[in-house]
Amino acid sequence: MGLIVQKYGGSSVADAEGMKRVAARIVASKKAGNQVVVVVSAMGDTTDELIELANAVTPIPQGRELDMLLTAGERISMALLAMAINNLGFEARSFTGSQAGVITNSVHGKARIIDVTPGRIQEAIDEGAIAIVAGFQGISQDTKDITTLGRGGSDTTAVALAAALEADVCEIYTDVDGVFSADPRVVPAARKLKTVTYEEMLELAAAGAKVLHLRCVEYARRYDLPIHVRSSFSPNEGTWVVANHPEGYSLGKGTNMEQAIISGVAHDKSEAKITIVGVPDRTGVAARIFQAIADADINIDMIVQNVSAATTGLTDISFTLPKSEGSDGTAVLQRIQGEVGFASILYDDTIGKLSLVGAGMRSNPGVTATFFAAMSEAGVNIEMISTSEIRISIIVREADLDRATKAAHTAFQLDADQVEAVVYGGTGR
Amino acid sequence: MGLIVQKYGGSSVADAEGMKRVAARIVASKKAGNQVVVVVSAMGDTTDELIELANAVTPIPQGRELDMLLTAGERISMALLAMAINNLGFEARSFTGSQAGVITNSVHGKARIIDVTPGRIQEAIDEGAIAIVAGFQGISQDTKDITTLGRGGSDTTAVALAAALEADVCEIYTDVDGVFSADPRVVPAARKLKTVTYEEMLELAAAGAKVLHLRCVEYARRYDLPIHVRSSFSPNEGTWVVANHPEGYSLGKGTNMEQAIISGVAHDKSEAKITIVGVPDRTGVAARIFQAIADADINIDMIVQNVSAATTGLTDISFTLPKSEGSDGTAVLQRIQGEVGFASILYDDTIGKLSLVGAGMRSNPGVTATFFAAMSEAGVNIEMISTSEIRISIIVREADLDRATKAAHTAFQLDADQVEAVVYGGTGR
Repeated sequence: MGLIVQKYGGSSVADAEGMKRVAARIVASKKAGNQVVVVVSAMGDTTDELIELANAVTPIPQGRELDMLLTAGERISMALLAMAINNLGFEARSFTGSQAGVITNSVHGKARIIDVTPGRIQEAIDEGAIAIVAGFQGISQDTKDITTLGRGGSDTTAVALAAALEADVCEIYTDVDGVFSADPRVVPAARKLKTVTYEEMLELAAAGAKVLHLRCVEYARRYDLPIHVRSSFSPNEGTWVVANHPEGYSLGKGTNMEQAIISGVAHDKSEAKITIVGVPDRTGVAARIFQAIADADINIDMIVQNVSAATTGLTDISFTLPKSEGSDGTAVLQRIQGEVGFASILYDDTIGKLSLVGAGMRSNPGVTATFFAAMSEAGVNIEMISTSEIRISIIVREADLDRATKAAHTAFQLDADQVEAVVYGGTGR
Repeated sequence: MGLIVQKYGGSSVADAEGMKRVAARIVASKKAGNQVVVVVSAMGDTTDELIELANAVTPIPQGRELDMLLTAGERISMALLAMAINNLGFEARSFTGSQAGVITNSVHGKARIIDVTPGRIQEAIDEGAIAIVAGFQGISQDTKDITTLGRGGSDTTAVALAAALEADVCEIYTDVDGVFSADPRVVPAARKLKTVTYEEMLELAAAGAKVLHLRCVEYARRYDLPIHVRSSFSPNEGTWVVANHPEGYSLGKGTNMEQAIISGVAHDKSEAKITIVGVPDRTGVAARIFQAIADADINIDMIVQNVSAATTGLTDISFTLPKSEGSDGTAVLQRIQGEVGFASILYDDTIGKLSLVGAGMRSNPGVTATFFAAMSEAGVNIEMISTSEIRISIIVREADLDRATKAAHTAFQLDADQVEAVVYGGTGR
């Protein structure tokens, strides 16, 4: 008994059969005595099809109009889902982002949520109905225009609504069973995690794990809202994303600290590396470069600066950024080349990023050693390194990435056959 | 120079090419110095596809959710049209029915417009932008739910907006060149009319001419708003729907009154006939029958009651109604059969309706005679007759309808080769 916010992605509601399956699942939650609010994405490939239509009409769709167009996708799926639930004899009412009170800023295509005023949703569930809310969309506070939240927008809608409604849990339904110790497509021995902390999940998401988006995890952490990531195709428990691992949490019987502290291994092939060669090693030069990058709204990830060669006073700076922003990034740098006075720009989009994530990693110096030894044994060359409290990321050749991922997973004894007698969950896929 | 509201139907914006063509047309109106507001329908078959999706999920979609679903269609087309205009270097902003201030009652699927408060539209055009508005949709005053206006809804949106904005003209773009003296598919010699009065247009629409819907003409008449019906595929003048024919209006050189007064011939195969046999000829019985029909929200058209046979005190009542409401209509009658005490119900859906429409017809008794003589010569049997100030309608066998239509068109010298030297328009297709 409680208030549950559930989010279903586009692959769960790709067709009429999917709609009916999801409707039955929602009704089961309602029958169990819960108040249920559902956030739904556009069906299957709808969003891509709409973007294709836009591109057929104009090479550069305006943000305002593109948002108007794309929000039609959720409108279709939420109405159909409400119908499917009504057909099972339960009352469901669908609401647009605007009707659900999702107030955003005016940045079309990647609006941020400013406030959530879910009066109509509260009213609907108080009256016993199931509320279906369009994910990914809102209304701008200033212009009253329709906005979209960008990538991961539906997850963020769900968590934001759950926080505003003071829900007991936000369930994110997906096509996998939960959060895994590595991508099972790359590491077949990967295990489903019973719990991950918000911090670990943030690092995993930032490191390329696609199951939950950064923004939604940040939002959940801020409001201390438990997220339950689970499959819409099976009734199994998934992975709980929470503030702390439960007391006595352990990956396996008799595990030592080195085993327990690593939650998972994430890999990411979506980034590219830019190296700026021959940068004058003066105060303010790096700041000028990264200010220009930031002004162009380009997200950079890892940054490495080589030690300056004392004789020349010149240094090299490398950073990684999404491949999709690669051409913008090089263009920005070309514009400031004269002013800053560096020698040249190298662009490399054949890199891969491998990250090791786990709470308490920092206090275990052995982790880094084990990690690098595993890479060496696998014959993988490390090009860049970056660390945080609970993450170590390295850049390797893209061709080496899958091998590196498997090697790291095995080295930290995360493989399923290495932790057969688990205490909490970890029952595999 | 003025304020023009233009409406484009789904066939005009069926694909990206159509969008671009319509965009160019809109921009031309803007370039000519006008303020332009555009009402657009869903692309091509979008609405049918959405209904199909709904039927795949539930046999009986709820009205509220079906409206939510269907309004996605206009959302897509209006955003794409705005993009196509932006791409030509002109600013366009799209607005949902709700954003455009189209306030309706709460009858989902066929809501009536209560008020139009187009503040955002006025603001957009005052700022020099072209406003694109979703046709067919509004927001209910009481529940703030999304509603649709039903058949002909986009035409009605356009006229209602034009009235609220005090536009100079409402241009209804369609895939034919205007209003014709008969359906050119049935009567190849049909001519395009230069003008028709609101009253004639109402009778033509009621008689089955599909180019404009009854509601939109009623709305235009109430606000004395000129409608210009024209083709989105050609630059030609279409047909003006106005309060009065212009002074000196005449169909042809040397035409006599009998020729001048007939605007056109309309035919309709969408109706069925129900005959109630053996009805007690007592006060209140007919009222009881038609009250039951009205309570079931069934639209009846023509009603004929035979003279009662004095010996039996029983009579027969026939009426016509849309075929789509035929089964509902017979069901209603079966329910009250015991109470009213009639003998039986006959249902006939193989009828056709032929209507002759023209201002001033009533004062020309020769019209009826000419009409019936033409039917007789064509060997067409007349089953029911109904007349108004400016219309005569007859029911014939469906198989005879096309022949009857052609015969009437020729009898009233409406054929193109009969009126070669026209004064106003009538230049044919």
